[in-house]
Amino acid sequence: MAVIDMVGFDADDTLWRSEDYFHAAQEEFERIVGRHVDLGDTGVRDRLYAVEKGNIAVFGYGVKGMALSMVEAAVDITDGRIPSRDLHRVVQIAKDMLRHPVDLLPGVREAVETIAAEHAVVLITKGDLFHQEAKVRDSGLSSLFRRIEIVSEKDAGTYARLLDEFGIPADRFVMVGNSLRSDIVPVLRLGGWGVHVPYHLTWAHENEADDVSAHPRLRQVASAAELPQALRGIVAAAAPAALAG
Amino acid sequence: MAVIDMVGFDADDTLWRSEDYFHAAQEEFERIVGRHVDLGDTGVRDRLYAVEKGNIAVFGYGVKGMALSMVEAAVDITDGRIPSRDLHRVVQIAKDMLRHPVDLLPGVREAVETIAAEHAVVLITKGDLFHQEAKVRDSGLSSLFRRIEIVSEKDAGTYARLLDEFGIPADRFVMVGNSLRSDIVPVLRLGGWGVHVPYHLTWAHENEADDVSAHPRLRQVASAAELPQALRGIVAAAAPAALAG
Repeated sequence: MAVIDMVGFDADDTLWRSEDYFHAAQEEFERIVGRHVDLGDTGVRDRLYAVEKGNIAVFGYGVKGMALSMVEAAVDITDGRIPSRDLHRVVQIAKDMLRHPVDLLPGVREAVETIAAEHAVVLITKGDLFHQEAKVRDSGLSSLFRRIEIVSEKDAGTYARLLDEFGIPADRFVMVGNSLRSDIVPVLRLGGWGVHVPYHLTWAHENEADDVSAHPRLRQVASAAELPQALRGIVAAAAPAALAG
Repeated sequence: MAVIDMVGFDADDTLWRSEDYFHAAQEEFERIVGRHVDLGDTGVRDRLYAVEKGNIAVFGYGVKGMALSMVEAAVDITDGRIPSRDLHRVVQIAKDMLRHPVDLLPGVREAVETIAAEHAVVLITKGDLFHQEAKVRDSGLSSLFRRIEIVSEKDAGTYARLLDEFGIPADRFVMVGNSLRSDIVPVLRLGGWGVHVPYHLTWAHENEADDVSAHPRLRQVASAAELPQALRGIVAAAAPAALAG
């Protein structure tokens, strides 16, 4: 009957706010660095992003890598003129981010509860293991998820491995998330379904993705409140194919 | 027949060198800080350990947390006198550690191959997801392990959850590792078996453990080469209980 066996949820900026804190951290970083260089000249934001992107291969994603990239970028951008007290402040920014209470997005709890009553749901999130586990614990949602998978990269290979472990064929799996690059495109590529819930802020890195806006297995919703209905629409759309199979 | 269903291996300082690099990083940190304060007065090592230990709850384990703690400690210890170039150097130390090739300990490959031919083997390691995955990949051993579990803390609760996921009773599980605190004591507590392979360097944190040296389900070996025989000894010791059950 159920032609969709499992629904995966992204976490950061899908279930709870995350990019807002990165954005605020970046603004504070610019204020700190701006005391020592002319911001107009240096393109601080571009140079920080260049350092961060160059460091993903060695640091991975998350707050700690961001903070280390900020220390590196601040010294480079100011040619070493930034005082070490300001770099100490960068570490404190990271600690504040890591300790910040989880702030669920509107309608998320109800949407996940509704969908979990109809499907097996799992959480699939990338980034820092320690921070993600802490956020899942603090969210109060963890009992709704059958599995919690924290991965280092959300690409087609990772989703294929997870679906294999779950024993779920891709065409019976739906991924819900805010990032086309990490949540939607790789799952569509494997033959699965996607529900895109855009977030008002998106890290530049997550916007680097193929255009899949017209894909037949993609749905787009404006907020979490619309998720249960979007899922029911996917079940209805998937049904003929399942009956034929 | 096989009364031991699964053997878990720790990774850092059990399969490959790790603490040596942390130790070298700490020595370099002391040299850097020592240019700005009298090392004899400040107990740099103690103060760094105090900062690191205080930060575990927010950073977790691993190189990135270590580096952020070093930045914090260096500014505190030098009362802000350390130049930011030196803190940039701390970030480079972290990057060097994260990019360092995996250096397998003597006899490890043969020991894991031998044990994997007789039992299901899994890798259970704590720390930074991204770095641990990179090391597993680089080690050339990943195909020998049925599962690779990277966890944020290795306590009795974590082992209980994993054994439940694996569907293995604790008394049919052996954990092999260098840390009494993380690899041995929690598994013995659950009713499992342990093989302790001490490493020549141990982080102070990992030494904080109960004395289990006389525990009947604990074996101690001097090197990886002795592991297959230790496992066979455990299988023989476990057999009467299994036959009785």
